[in-house]
Amino acid sequence: MPRVSQDHLDARRRQILDGARSCFARHGYEGATVRRLEEATGLSRGAIFHHFRDKESLFLALAEEDALRMAEVVAEQGLVQVMRDLLSTPQDIGGEHPVHSLATRLEVTRRLRTDPDFRARWAERSQQLTEATKARLQRQRDAGNLRDDVDVTVLTAFLELVLEGLVSHLAMGLPADDLGPVLDVVEETVRRHRNQG
Amino acid sequence: MPRVSQDHLDARRRQILDGARSCFARHGYEGATVRRLEEATGLSRGAIFHHFRDKESLFLALAEEDALRMAEVVAEQGLVQVMRDLLSTPQDIGGEHPVHSLATRLEVTRRLRTDPDFRARWAERSQQLTEATKARLQRQRDAGNLRDDVDVTVLTAFLELVLEGLVSHLAMGLPADDLGPVLDVVEETVRRHRNQG
Repeated sequence: MPRVSQDHLDARRRQILDGARSCFARHGYEGATVRRLEEATGLSRGAIFHHFRDKESLFLALAEEDALRMAEVVAEQGLVQVMRDLLSTPQDIGGEHPVHSLATRLEVTRRLRTDPDFRARWAERSQQLTEATKARLQRQRDAGNLRDDVDVTVLTAFLELVLEGLVSHLAMGLPADDLGPVLDVVEETVRRHRNQG
Repeated sequence: MPRVSQDHLDARRRQILDGARSCFARHGYEGATVRRLEEATGLSRGAIFHHFRDKESLFLALAEEDALRMAEVVAEQGLVQVMRDLLSTPQDIGGEHPVHSLATRLEVTRRLRTDPDFRARWAERSQQLTEATKARLQRQRDAGNLRDDVDVTVLTAFLELVLEGLVSHLAMGLPADDLGPVLDVVEETVRRHRNQG
C-alpha cells in the first residue's frame, strides 16, 4: 500500500474543514448530521473521522481557525477593525469568514452553558483572541496612542464585550447599517483622550 | 355559574406568568413543554391557554414584562444601571429578574433568525427599551451631563450593543466579576468629557 503523502493529508483535512464550515453555518451544530457532513465535504464518514475524532473536535478545529484568523487581524489592525470587517461582510457568502459561524455560535452558546468539558476547550481558543487584543493594546499604549488612565486588561474586556454584542446583534439578524458611528465611539474610547497628557 | 372576578383573573394570569417564567428559564423555550408548564404553574393546559393563545404568546408576554421593567429602570437610572444590576444578581435564583430569561433568550435568538413574524413581534418589545434609553439620554443631555459631540441615537445604539454583549457573556456562563470597571468605562464614554465645553 503506498504511503499517503503529508500534502495529501493536509489537502484532505482542508477539504473537510471547508465543507464542514459551510455545513455548520447552514444547519447549525445539531443540524450538521454526519450525512450532511458527508455531502458537504464530498467524503465518507470514515475519511472524515479519520482526521477528526468526532464532530466536536471538527467544530473546535474550525473555531480555532477563526480565533487564529481574528487574532492575526487584531495584531495587525486591532479588534475594532475586526468588528468593522464583521459589519461590512455580507453574511450570505459561504465559507471563508468568521461571521459565517454565527448560527453555529448560537448552538455553541447553548452547549457552553451545559457542558463543562466543552467550555474548557472553548475557553482555551477564545483566550488566544484575548491575548492578541491585549498585546495589541499594550503596543498602542507604548506608542502613546492609548489612553493611560484605564488598565489595558479593562480596555481589552471592554472591546471584547462590544464584540460579543456585535456578534449577538448580527446573529439575531438585527439591522447593522447604523453601527459604523457606534464603532467610532468605541475606537475613540480606547484612544488617548484629546486633552489628555 | 358565578361570574369570575377581574381580581381572580388577574391573579390567575400572574400565577401563569410566574410559573412559566421559571419553566422557560429552566428548560428553554423548546424544552418548556405543555406538561412542564402545567407542573410549573400548577394549572391545567385548559386554564393556561384560556389566558394565553399559545406558548409563543405566553413567552412574549414575559418578554414584554421584562422590557417594561428594564425600561422603568432605564428611565430612573439609565441603561448602565440595568447592566450593573445584571452583573450583581446571582443567576440561579428563580423567577423575578430579567436575567433569568437568558437561557430562553438564546432560544429566542435562534427563532429570530428564522421566523419573520416572531421577529416583528419581538422588535416591537425591544423598541420600548430603545425609546426609554433614548429619552433618558436626551434628558441627561438637556441637563448638561451627556457628551454633546455624538448624536443621542448613536450613544443609545452604543449602550444597547454593550448590553447585548453583556447578556451574551452572562448567557455563556463566562466569568463576570471583572466587568465592573468595564461598565465604568462605558458610563464615562457617554458622559460629558472632563475637559469638554
